[in-house]
Amino acid sequence: MRIKSVRVTPIAFRDPPLLNVAGVHEPWALRSIIEVETSDGRVGLGESYGEATTLADLDAIAPSLIGLSPFDLNALTRAVYARFPGSGDPAAQFPAGGDKARASALGAFEVALLDLQGQIAGLRLCELLGGAVRERVPYSAYLFYKFARHKDPAVPGDDWGEVLTHAQMVGETRRMIEAHGFGSIKFKGGVFEPEYEIETLRALRAAFPDHPLRIDPNGGWSVATTRRVMPLLDGLLEYLEDPVGTLAEMGEVARFAGMPLATNMVTIAFGHIPETIRLGAVQVILSDHHYWGGLRATQHLAQICRTFGLGLSMHSNSHLGISLAAMTHVGAAIPNLAYAADTHYPWQVDEVIAGGKLRFEGGMLAVPKGPGLGVTLDRAALAELHENFLRCGIRKRDDGAEMRKHQPGWNGKRPRF
Amino acid sequence: MRIKSVRVTPIAFRDPPLLNVAGVHEPWALRSIIEVETSDGRVGLGESYGEATTLADLDAIAPSLIGLSPFDLNALTRAVYARFPGSGDPAAQFPAGGDKARASALGAFEVALLDLQGQIAGLRLCELLGGAVRERVPYSAYLFYKFARHKDPAVPGDDWGEVLTHAQMVGETRRMIEAHGFGSIKFKGGVFEPEYEIETLRALRAAFPDHPLRIDPNGGWSVATTRRVMPLLDGLLEYLEDPVGTLAEMGEVARFAGMPLATNMVTIAFGHIPETIRLGAVQVILSDHHYWGGLRATQHLAQICRTFGLGLSMHSNSHLGISLAAMTHVGAAIPNLAYAADTHYPWQVDEVIAGGKLRFEGGMLAVPKGPGLGVTLDRAALAELHENFLRCGIRKRDDGAEMRKHQPGWNGKRPRF
Repeated sequence: MRIKSVRVTPIAFRDPPLLNVAGVHEPWALRSIIEVETSDGRVGLGESYGEATTLADLDAIAPSLIGLSPFDLNALTRAVYARFPGSGDPAAQFPAGGDKARASALGAFEVALLDLQGQIAGLRLCELLGGAVRERVPYSAYLFYKFARHKDPAVPGDDWGEVLTHAQMVGETRRMIEAHGFGSIKFKGGVFEPEYEIETLRALRAAFPDHPLRIDPNGGWSVATTRRVMPLLDGLLEYLEDPVGTLAEMGEVARFAGMPLATNMVTIAFGHIPETIRLGAVQVILSDHHYWGGLRATQHLAQICRTFGLGLSMHSNSHLGISLAAMTHVGAAIPNLAYAADTHYPWQVDEVIAGGKLRFEGGMLAVPKGPGLGVTLDRAALAELHENFLRCGIRKRDDGAEMRKHQPGWNGKRPRF
Repeated sequence: MRIKSVRVTPIAFRDPPLLNVAGVHEPWALRSIIEVETSDGRVGLGESYGEATTLADLDAIAPSLIGLSPFDLNALTRAVYARFPGSGDPAAQFPAGGDKARASALGAFEVALLDLQGQIAGLRLCELLGGAVRERVPYSAYLFYKFARHKDPAVPGDDWGEVLTHAQMVGETRRMIEAHGFGSIKFKGGVFEPEYEIETLRALRAAFPDHPLRIDPNGGWSVATTRRVMPLLDGLLEYLEDPVGTLAEMGEVARFAGMPLATNMVTIAFGHIPETIRLGAVQVILSDHHYWGGLRATQHLAQICRTFGLGLSMHSNSHLGISLAAMTHVGAAIPNLAYAADTHYPWQVDEVIAGGKLRFEGGMLAVPKGPGLGVTLDRAALAELHENFLRCGIRKRDDGAEMRKHQPGWNGKRPRF
């Protein structure tokens, strides 16, 4: 059984005006849907970034997959690496500088090939990955400050309304938890002065006394600021995510932090791990198969975390159901996944898989049934979301430019605080 | 498809009187053959150690595998871990002290389950493991000083004769290379004074100027001795394997060694890796799926080596064709296997697989054809080798006791030199 064709379809879906250190989400989030079809007509699915650079990589690599076996992940790796000359061969040490574009392209196609492997073997993907150690994977409530609506008056508003005050954030959280049952709270910071955000955290702690809390300023704080606010965070957090923006700074913070430090910003590739270990800079890695190189790479990362006594959780960008299914399968198969995973999924109203949105119950997603990923495309939805892409005009995410539509003087300099 | 039965058959096969730091090989080497049978009559094969402690572990674990899917390696891991209470759960950090018995039991069964997976999916094991990056896996000539024959006059002699002088070793090497085409030489030291063994190395270098050379004193040297002979080794070696016996000592040697240091003695479990990295004690890990926990664990180890810029090769104990097939499949699937692997296989005349001994060509073994491992049992041979086990009286390898039959005053104290 060989790969006969590869299709990469860029899409755009509606996204609310969620605030973060880089600005505010634009009305449309970009994504790509990868279809890898075999000679006998099976289709394996993947989902990845939708920016122009990613699309160019995926389109350039796609033809070289024709004729490969869906099981030959080493051949896939070689095909992907050939697109990035000078970045090393599959046997060389991982580059210390990271290889995000390369690993992202690998992850985009790898999931589709694994989906095919599961379909061919008649196994759910989690079974192919070593067996489900849990049938339901826990996710966290991912909370944002947000504007009431996008600046462009032609874009319809969402039904979450404005969330800028502590009370509004408690309301957002209550709705999120009532709808999905989440048992952990991740709160996106880096938007306001740290002291204000920590007051929001305290309001969340009072309203949800049993929910583990995390805050993620996305590297928006300086080391000095982090040191200043550390006493305020004492006893509040499950972990502190990316308070500062570089690995060296995280190493500094680790020396005075009173809680584990987590990251999806400073340790984002295998090549970053030796220095991460040397500095003791991070205690929890937020894995993400989209940029670590796929689900098998995520399992390698999990084994590295186990070896070095690091915690493992999962990071999320705005995404749809194919990515969520992949996260859930690998999350089900990794014994040492110790935290509820992040997901933007509840913020998305659009979907590309048949049957509509996957549903959380009790804050967990059940592993999809059926072989492979267990999800299939809704082709009408795919066509519609592709039309969105063609019409929306966005080709590169720019939360800063969007923010300046609201606040013309806004300055994205980091650290902000 | 579920596991219906598990059989563990201890065997003994003839072994020549090969010398090493622990003494001399006994006339019989012990091994276990693992058969895991599914409800539809497929049989997956494994091969592991045959000492009483290993057999007790395997026999105790075997019943708990009944009813599992051959794909559920996580369930296998839990079943194995349940035999070793207090040694941690599958999600915990690897213990710093290592877990050799636990990982060995896991590896023994894991290969049999992977063999079944390959058979069920109709894939060669290397394909299941991510695809063959090489169709032929290189092995090295594994050279030993040896006695002409065992002490027991009832044991027939072998046709290699005595190898105690430099000229005899050159002869042994020539025969080994002419028969199998090996392109690298691993020389087992720790037997005589280092200066004598290095003279032997020089004779090998003169006779085989293009073959990379390694010496393995099995931790038989002190740090001071290693420092003393280091100038004599200058420019001679591809790597120096386990000159000293502890991780801390390897760290000391690494500070003055003029070549990479390799090990299969001080870094033999995931729990040893953090300290290995911290000390910079080892540059090449000699992996061995038998005690690292199987072939998937070997792939994890390979990724760790790639991440930290360590070399990867493969270690061998005395073994038969099932182990060689497993080594070859995983060796074919690991891109960063950078050295010819060790194997005792040419020293063994017995075999347990149908069709007799696998054959090296040009120093390489072609990946076996057919799904899974691609080898099947010769049941008559298995019965005969099991009879050997029952008759030979050996239940625990003791090279030192065997050595004292030749040299009554022999003292196995290490470091010997």
